[in-house]
This record gives sequence, structure tokens and C-alpha cells, in this order.
Amino acid sequence: MSVTAPQGFEAAGVAVGLKSTGKPDVAVVVNRGPLKVGAAVFTSNRAKANPIIWSQQVIQDGVVEAIVLNSGGANCFTGSFGFQTTHQTAEKAAELLGVSAGDILVCSTGLIGTGDEVFRAKVLDGTEQGIAALSTDGGEIASEAIMTTDSRPKRSTHTGDGWSIGGMAKGAGMLAPGLATMLVVITTDAVLTAEEADAHLRSATRTSFDRLDSDGCMSTNDQVSLLVSGASGVAPDADAFRAALAEVCADLARQLQGDAEGASHDITIRVVHAASEEEAVEVGRSVARNNLFKAAIFGNDPNWGRVLAAIGTTDAVFDPYDVDVWMNGVRVCSAGGPDQPREAVDLTPRATDLLIDLKVGDSEATILTNDLTHDYVHENSAYSS
Amino acid sequence: MSVTAPQGFEAAGVAVGLKSTGKPDVAVVVNRGPLKVGAAVFTSNRAKANPIIWSQQVIQDGVVEAIVLNSGGANCFTGSFGFQTTHQTAEKAAELLGVSAGDILVCSTGLIGTGDEVFRAKVLDGTEQGIAALSTDGGEIASEAIMTTDSRPKRSTHTGDGWSIGGMAKGAGMLAPGLATMLVVITTDAVLTAEEADAHLRSATRTSFDRLDSDGCMSTNDQVSLLVSGASGVAPDADAFRAALAEVCADLARQLQGDAEGASHDITIRVVHAASEEEAVEVGRSVARNNLFKAAIFGNDPNWGRVLAAIGTTDAVFDPYDVDVWMNGVRVCSAGGPDQPREAVDLTPRATDLLIDLKVGDSEATILTNDLTHDYVHENSAYSS
Repeated sequence: MSVTAPQGFEAAGVAVGLKSTGKPDVAVVVNRGPLKVGAAVFTSNRAKANPIIWSQQVIQDGVVEAIVLNSGGANCFTGSFGFQTTHQTAEKAAELLGVSAGDILVCSTGLIGTGDEVFRAKVLDGTEQGIAALSTDGGEIASEAIMTTDSRPKRSTHTGDGWSIGGMAKGAGMLAPGLATMLVVITTDAVLTAEEADAHLRSATRTSFDRLDSDGCMSTNDQVSLLVSGASGVAPDADAFRAALAEVCADLARQLQGDAEGASHDITIRVVHAASEEEAVEVGRSVARNNLFKAAIFGNDPNWGRVLAAIGTTDAVFDPYDVDVWMNGVRVCSAGGPDQPREAVDLTPRATDLLIDLKVGDSEATILTNDLTHDYVHENSAYSS
Repeated sequence: MSVTAPQGFEAAGVAVGLKSTGKPDVAVVVNRGPLKVGAAVFTSNRAKANPIIWSQQVIQDGVVEAIVLNSGGANCFTGSFGFQTTHQTAEKAAELLGVSAGDILVCSTGLIGTGDEVFRAKVLDGTEQGIAALSTDGGEIASEAIMTTDSRPKRSTHTGDGWSIGGMAKGAGMLAPGLATMLVVITTDAVLTAEEADAHLRSATRTSFDRLDSDGCMSTNDQVSLLVSGASGVAPDADAFRAALAEVCADLARQLQGDAEGASHDITIRVVHAASEEEAVEVGRSVARNNLFKAAIFGNDPNWGRVLAAIGTTDAVFDPYDVDVWMNGVRVCSAGGPDQPREAVDLTPRATDLLIDLKVGDSEATILTNDLTHDYVHENSAYSS
């Protein structure tokens, strides 16, 4: 069901040849109201794709009627022609829906530099076909139309007290801080103001998508959008809604991690007893980005030395000789020295837990990452994406 | 010849079983004077191995009699026992050479956490055997004794106006900023004060080893040492000596790059027209650390979109829509859009040139890196190092 699980939404996914496989490649999600509230967060990369530049303007007034997403081309670094393509996409959708183009979000994903006449024609065609195919059952195929190297669609739903949340996501590489090559659309029929929607979305992404750092690479096209129809007529308890939205985001983030390009381990890095949450994040991220550590996990090698070497490159408060490191429940390093033997650690399961105890303060944070594998290198060398 | 090319130095390399292959694993370089001047720079990693902690004290007074180096164990995170091993190594060498232990530098390289009783016994044995085997021809075997996953020794010499410089280096992974898993010993028979030696060494490493960023990982054990015998009796022209030392360092850095673990491309990233040298370095390093870019080069794919996406994560002054990118002499991106077709770029040679024109200012910098390959993943997953 994904984005059509809450009341007030219709969606579609259609195939217009942007993907050489002939699979669906344009998705449309329309908010039928009564509220037309929207919020969104965007890549923090300063090199932004045309749909990002466009959508950042659209979201200013907190009003969103619909979102059009395409795979098969990022429309990034495609010049003014590419920006016009995004603009025309919004105008085409607006005309067909009888709304303002300034209330249409646009997302693209695929190869940077792709955005020529052929691309434009297909995206406009897909927008038209998608709007013609809209239905309240369209959430599933929409979630398939946004896939690139994803091996499976990512969907999540939550049923609250009289309201619900639905979401879909794509992304299988460049999953990095401040978002990733990741397109996420979340819908809700709860009654929220634009300010509430924005605050809840920022709170939820801060500890979910923002802490998924699969390969340290940051995309030019990432966007997480929240569309609010208010169709349930229920104004939710703020804490309950925020927790539910955070859980939907965390669920989608774990699905992205679990489908990361070529990965063989899903690594959860939990940093505890840090001086601050920021420092816990800094330490976790430094380890998550250390290629030597990531390759060791691929090789089922509990190489804690590489963990300490990565921590040592941060500015976090810690004493290298008073750090404990646990892998899958086994303390392999205590007080900065060897503890249990490597043989005691079983790293064959895909789920891998790394616990770093800095023994400094009371703060903690969790970063999700993946290992560095032959398949990662293969997929990212043999496939232009 | 390496470190024994200049007058006043003896060296040796011996095998004591630290390496399972039986190859040489302990090296000793002794300065016979008349000057006993030394300078050194160290890893900026806050997690430092015992030999680093020791050597940082030794170098304080600018007096160095000898340096003992071992492969086959990093003696890092091995507790107070490990520090005592380093201390005993210096004391053993000092006793046999009739000098002060406080003038003996120590370096170790290998697996973090290795530093038990067996390790200590072998290192002390190697120190004794090495000093017994010292000769003015010992530079070559010394350069072999410091190898780990290196496929070949790295040596460089320079003959100046009445003085000379010799150097050896090891390192084939974790080649990253602020040094790398890299041990370098450089000798000269020029007449220099401790202050001159320190200034020249810092100047030379800043634009050579510090700009070699093979895989973004920073070691706990890196050390570049300069030993000055003054045996030529010639006080060199400062500019000529600095340039010669810089060229020896650059030569060794290129040899390290050319032997980086599993690499199939040596990538030279030149960033021009930056607002400052620091920003040029920041941009070059961001690209050098982008796994997607590195995997693309392995696949001979001139994926300039990944270059721009990496630049976009920096704080450098630039306009994403006014950047040119050249690969191996072909302009693949101009003004932030596609230029020449991908097919025009031949990425099959190992030497790969990436030129980034930021069109902002007058500063530039060059960063050396490598591609991300199957062999890199294999070597760093199958081999505990």
C-alpha cells in the first residue's frame, strides 16, 4: 500500500522507456485533501539537481498538491534545458490536475548528466500517463517505479489512533549523511499544519535517514517529502505522531541499508558514553566511512584496531587507552588493548553489531552502514549511475 | 642504496621471524656523524602506536643517533607492556651503540594489537642482530625489511652540490592525510642544524606525503624521519636543499601510490583556480575519498557526475554550474554540464589525470590517490593488517 495507505491519496507508476528494462519508471502521488500540506528535506550537497532546486521553491509555502518522480535519469548538471524540463513536468501535472505548478514537487534519480530532449519527452509522457492511471491502489506500483539499482521496493505503514502514515523509498547506494541517493515520499491523513509537518519531518529524518551512511557518498538528488491530506479528520497527539513518523522513517532507512549495493553485512554502529550526541555521531560516522574497517567486516574479520584508528581521526573527547569495543556481543578490545580473541566473534550473520564505549559522558548515537565488498566495487564500476 | 647513499650512515636488515615468510623484518639505520641531527613528523591520528609516543619524545631535542624499525606487528594498543617493548628496543640499541636510549627513534608496522612477549623477544633479537650486521651497503636490505604488503621496496636518492640525500619508504595501504601507514627514513650528509632539518622536512612532507590519500584511512604508526650526519662537511644552499628534499619525498610518495594495495589506477587530481590552496586541497581530497568515483575509475568510466557530487560536499568557494572537469586531457564537463562524450576518454592506462577547474581564484593543489578495486577489497578483507 505504501503511500496510498492513508486516506486522501492516489498514486500510479508507469513505464515510458526511461529504464532500458521496460519496467515502471515514472511515479505520481496526488494529495486529494482536504488539506494540501507538504514538508520536505533535501540533500545538503551544494551540487544540486534541477528537481531539488525546483522543489526547494515549491515547499516554501507548505502547500503541495502532488509529487512526480522519475528513475532513469538524475536531471542533474543538465543546464537550463534540464531546469526547464523539471518546470515543464510540474506545469504538465498542474494542468492535468487543475492546480498550480508551484505546488508540484519533482524528484529524479539516475545518471548525472542525463536530461536531453528524449529524457524530457519521456518524463512528460510519464507524467501524463501517470495522472491518467491514478488510483487509491497505486502505492505499490509507484514504489516500484522509483527503483534504480534497488533489488526490491521499500514500503512502510503505521496505523495510529484514527490516522495513519504510509511511505515508500528508493536508494541502494550513495546513502550518506544529510541524506543519500534516496527518494522518499511519506503520506498521512492526520490533520497537521505546515509548521507541524515540517517540524515532525525534520525530527524524524535527523535520527533515521541522516544516520544511514552506507558508503559515505552524498547524492545531488535526495529528497524526503511528507504529504498531509488531513482526510482522517483527526489531529494527532504530537508525541505519538512524531514517534510513529520516526519509526516509519527508521523502518525505511533499515530497508535501504538492507538493500545497499553489493553489501553483505548490515552494520549497526552504536556509540555510547560520548560527551555529546554530536560527538557520538562523529565517531560512528568516522568508523562507518573507514574502508579498511568495512573491508574487514566483509572478510568476517573483527579487526578492532581499524575501529580505534578511525576513532582517532575524530575530534571527539576520548582516551584511546580507555575505550571498549564489542562486536556481535563479544568484547574484543577493552581499555584500548586486546580482550577476547578474534575467534570468539561470529561475523557470518548479515546483521552486525558494533558497540563502542567511549567512557566519557552520557550521550549516544547509532549509525547504520554496510561493508565494502567485491559486489559494491563491481556494481559501481560496471554500472554508470 | 637508499639511506646509505649519503656519507656517514650504516644500515642493516635482518630476519627474526616476525614475518611468517621468513623475509627480513627488522631494519636499523645508524648515523655515524659527525652531526647527530634528527627531525621527524608523525601521524596526526590521536590513536598513536607505542613507537610514535616514544619517538615524539626522542625528537624533542633534535638529536638522533639511530632508528630501529620492525614490520610484522604495529605494537599499537598493546598497553604498558607494549610501551616497555619500545623502550627496551631503544635501550638495547643504545647499549650496543654506546649512546643514549633517548636518542633512538623506533618505528613499527603491521597488525594493531600485536605486541606480546614473543613479539618483544623477536624485536630485541632483531635489534641486536641488525646492529651486528650494520654496513655502508645496508640501505637496500633495510628498505626490504620494512615492507609489509608492499610488492617492492621504495628507495630514492638525490645528489646535490657536494651533499646528497637518500631515502626509503614502506606503505601500501592506509595512505591518507597527515601521513599514512607509512614509514619513511631519509638521510643526508649535508650540514644542517636541528631547526633547519625540521623546517625542511615539514616543508617537504606538506606537499608530498600529506597529499597522498590512497584510501582515506589514517594509520596509527606513521613516521617520516630525517637523519643528518653532516659528513659531507657542506652546508647546502637552503632553497636547493629544500627542493631536493621535496623531490625525494615526492618520488617516494609516487612510489607508494604506484604500489597501493590492489590499485589499478594511479590518479593525479589537480585542482586549479581555487580561492586558496587549502580549498584546492579540500576539493581534491573530497574527490580522492569518494568511493563511487574511485570505483568508476576502476571500471574505466569517466563519471564526472560523481566528481561534481564530491565537490559539492565541500565548503570551498565554487559555482556548481561553472566548473570544468578534464579526464586524461578530455574536457568531459564544462560549466557544470556535459561536454565531450565519455567515449572520447581513454582510461585504460594506469596513470590517470583528473583536472578540476573551479574558475574562482589563482590557487591550486595536487592530490594523489588510487582507484577502488576488487583487489583492494580482497587484500583488506582476507588479510589482517
